[in-house]
Amino acid sequence: MFRLQLQEEPGPVDNLEERNIAWAVDQIVEETRRVLERISPSEAEAFIQELETANRIFFFGAGRSGFVLRTFCMRLMQLGFNVFYVGETITPRIQPGDLLTVISGSGETGHTCGLVKQAHQRQARTVAITAHRNSTAGQVADVAVVIPGATKLVLAQEEDSHQCPGSLFEQAAFLFLEAVVMLLFHLKLGRDREKMLARHADLE
Amino acid sequence: MFRLQLQEEPGPVDNLEERNIAWAVDQIVEETRRVLERISPSEAEAFIQELETANRIFFFGAGRSGFVLRTFCMRLMQLGFNVFYVGETITPRIQPGDLLTVISGSGETGHTCGLVKQAHQRQARTVAITAHRNSTAGQVADVAVVIPGATKLVLAQEEDSHQCPGSLFEQAAFLFLEAVVMLLFHLKLGRDREKMLARHADLE
Amino acid sequence: MFRLQLQEEPGPVDNLEERNIAWAVDQIVEETRRVLERISPSEAEAFIQELETANRIFFFGAGRSGFVLRTFCMRLMQLGFNVFYVGETITPRIQPGDLLTVISGSGETGHTCGLVKQAHQRQARTVAITAHRNSTAGQVADVAVVIPGATKLVLAQEEDSHQCPGSLFEQAAFLFLEAVVMLLFHLKLGRDREKMLARHADLE
Amino acid sequence: MFRLQLQEEPGPVDNLEERNIAWAVDQIVEETRRVLERISPSEAEAFIQELETANRIFFFGAGRSGFVLRTFCMRLMQLGFNVFYVGETITPRIQPGDLLTVISGSGETGHTCGLVKQAHQRQARTVAITAHRNSTAGQVADVAVVIPGATKLVLAQEEDSHQCPGSLFEQAAFLFLEAVVMLLFHLKLGRDREKMLARHADLE
Repeated sequence: MFRLQLQEEPGPVDNLEERNIAWAVDQIVEETRRVLERISPSEAEAFIQELETANRIFFFGAGRSGFVLRTFCMRLMQLGFNVFYVGETITPRIQPGDLLTVISGSGETGHTCGLVKQAHQRQARTVAITAHRNSTAGQVADVAVVIPGATKLVLAQEEDSHQCPGSLFEQAAFLFLEAVVMLLFHLKLGRDREKMLARHADLE
Repeated sequence: MFRLQLQEEPGPVDNLEERNIAWAVDQIVEETRRVLERISPSEAEAFIQELETANRIFFFGAGRSGFVLRTFCMRLMQLGFNVFYVGETITPRIQPGDLLTVISGSGETGHTCGLVKQAHQRQARTVAITAHRNSTAGQVADVAVVIPGATKLVLAQEEDSHQCPGSLFEQAAFLFLEAVVMLLFHLKLGRDREKMLARHADLE
Repeated sequence: MFRLQLQEEPGPVDNLEERNIAWAVDQIVEETRRVLERISPSEAEAFIQELETANRIFFFGAGRSGFVLRTFCMRLMQLGFNVFYVGETITPRIQPGDLLTVISGSGETGHTCGLVKQAHQRQARTVAITAHRNSTAGQVADVAVVIPGATKLVLAQEEDSHQCPGSLFEQAAFLFLEAVVMLLFHLKLGRDREKMLARHADLE
Repeated sequence: MFRLQLQEEPGPVDNLEERNIAWAVDQIVEETRRVLERISPSEAEAFIQELETANRIFFFGAGRSGFVLRTFCMRLMQLGFNVFYVGETITPRIQPGDLLTVISGSGETGHTCGLVKQAHQRQARTVAITAHRNSTAGQVADVAVVIPGATKLVLAQEEDSHQCPGSLFEQAAFLFLEAVVMLLFHLKLGRDREKMLARHADLE
């Protein structure tokens, strides 16, 4: 097993002689579970209703959060939603009746917040997935889904984490979005895998 | 709370009257944990040693697995590794001493397997993250890390899942890679967040 | 003005004392014009007819050619075509009645040729834009559009070029595709800029 | 040959009975040449000097201009420059001594202008490739390279074009950047194709 012989370090981690992949997995699952429990069911419901009623759904996120959001966007395409990812080749102009869903742990990523405001000017609806309700994105968006995981801001009020800054937010956001996918898969497709695979890309 | 009125369906799911986001989160965490427990520590160790000894590390995966791998690739950059993602603008020619790490649930994605063979021709090392040890990718790569989650193949021997085909593999792969990141963050940077943020992109 | 003091070199270039941006521009325009004159009008026509009759149009190219093809794909979206770029987040499964258009100077890029064959298995039509009619892509695709510019293969029968390998093919391919866009803009939209800008992305 | 039967239209185009690909190619080459002649040699020289003296070079552009800039970024990698494209997986934090090169026809793309300002805050140098010297990007950047082609703004003072809004700027920008590549290929590599191909991606 891979052994990490760490020097003494400050902080709340028990001084284990060996830190290995099983220890790290356990930490992550435990930290993530704590964050997931704190997500508001009514915010989740509001988010799903926006997805269900939108004409077309646009997505954007920077960095690792953006990759997490892309996995969600791809699944919605396979589930039959009309989706686009901002910045990709075929993304058209947003219109009234469309929805923009953004993700930003800090809720302050400049470009992301700018897109939310721009979408509003076009009479589109907006959802922000963020760790901070009082952030710009959390305040400006029509619906905020708060995932209270530690972000790169490393703020005092954030959930404590032994991980890299931002990781816990990204992990909890990913699993939350996967839970939304699971509900939609049951609701819209009645768990019919064939219907889903019929849209799954084959040229890749 | 969002209520899914599902028709009767076959299968092992309890016939709950209400399926909501908390139920879905629990299912996913439980399914993922079962898969994560079955990952071989020695394979994880072999993977980390390849990462540590490689000159440069190239990554590739198609579809959602590819986005998961990009989150890992970005973290390794922030941790100080010399990394590239195949198909992006500045990715150069692979050389002897480099490592190609691919991800493929089925282990049979044509392009992905082709890249592994091409890397070998260039005397580069290869790692395949896959659900199936006996797949092409699992057999051809120098190191296979088996994440035994359900894939889009929906095979009888795969872990049972209530989710979309492929989701469980992708979730377990993501959390496994996050555990690798956590170990490297402790090992290489001594949990120093400042060192990490000093490389984190600001133009984004 | 920027002056390049070059050492003596072999080859057909006149030994100019100064090589500057105006000289380079002239060389490129001249080289490109020679290649463009050799494109077959009937191949261009066949290509446009495939675009016009396809249900949906998928695109793929590797490297710089791929970026050139993306500029074309984006324009077709703005002109009202139903387009996708292989490998992007929302690209679905190709179907009978769809068209795959690929670009490959050499016509031998492994992944690109593999996609053409895969599209055929799905009863989709295919177009290959290539410098070499007798290449794999040129032979396998339903329609080949030959742009006889110098490629990275640097073959004896290729048009002579003072540029990097591949550049001349990519430049001629770009201007050819822009000419196709111009014709479609006149034909389909009657040069109506407003109709075009109505689809142009605003979130970007 | 493909024939476009157009209705009468206003404007300076001769009323040709047939508009075909050769006509379109000629129009584009002619329009592009007129724009290229108006690029200032001293601006081109200043741009090249910024490229040569920068520690690392970051690039960004939205839409089709962004794809054009990516072709340039890829070539600079092959020529041995240390380059990154903003938004891609492995792009790190910009530092003093680095250069940010952006492209924006209008010079007013919000995100692009924001990045230029952010780069300045980090004591990085900036270059803007734009059609409008008096635009935000043209004014804020340390060096402006003005490519006076028609943009999506369709302004009265812009070069007249029969093409889609923005096309002429993008074509002239592409050929200008290719001319810069050609000079650097002669200057830095002495036209040695082998040195260049040694860095050309093979996994793609």
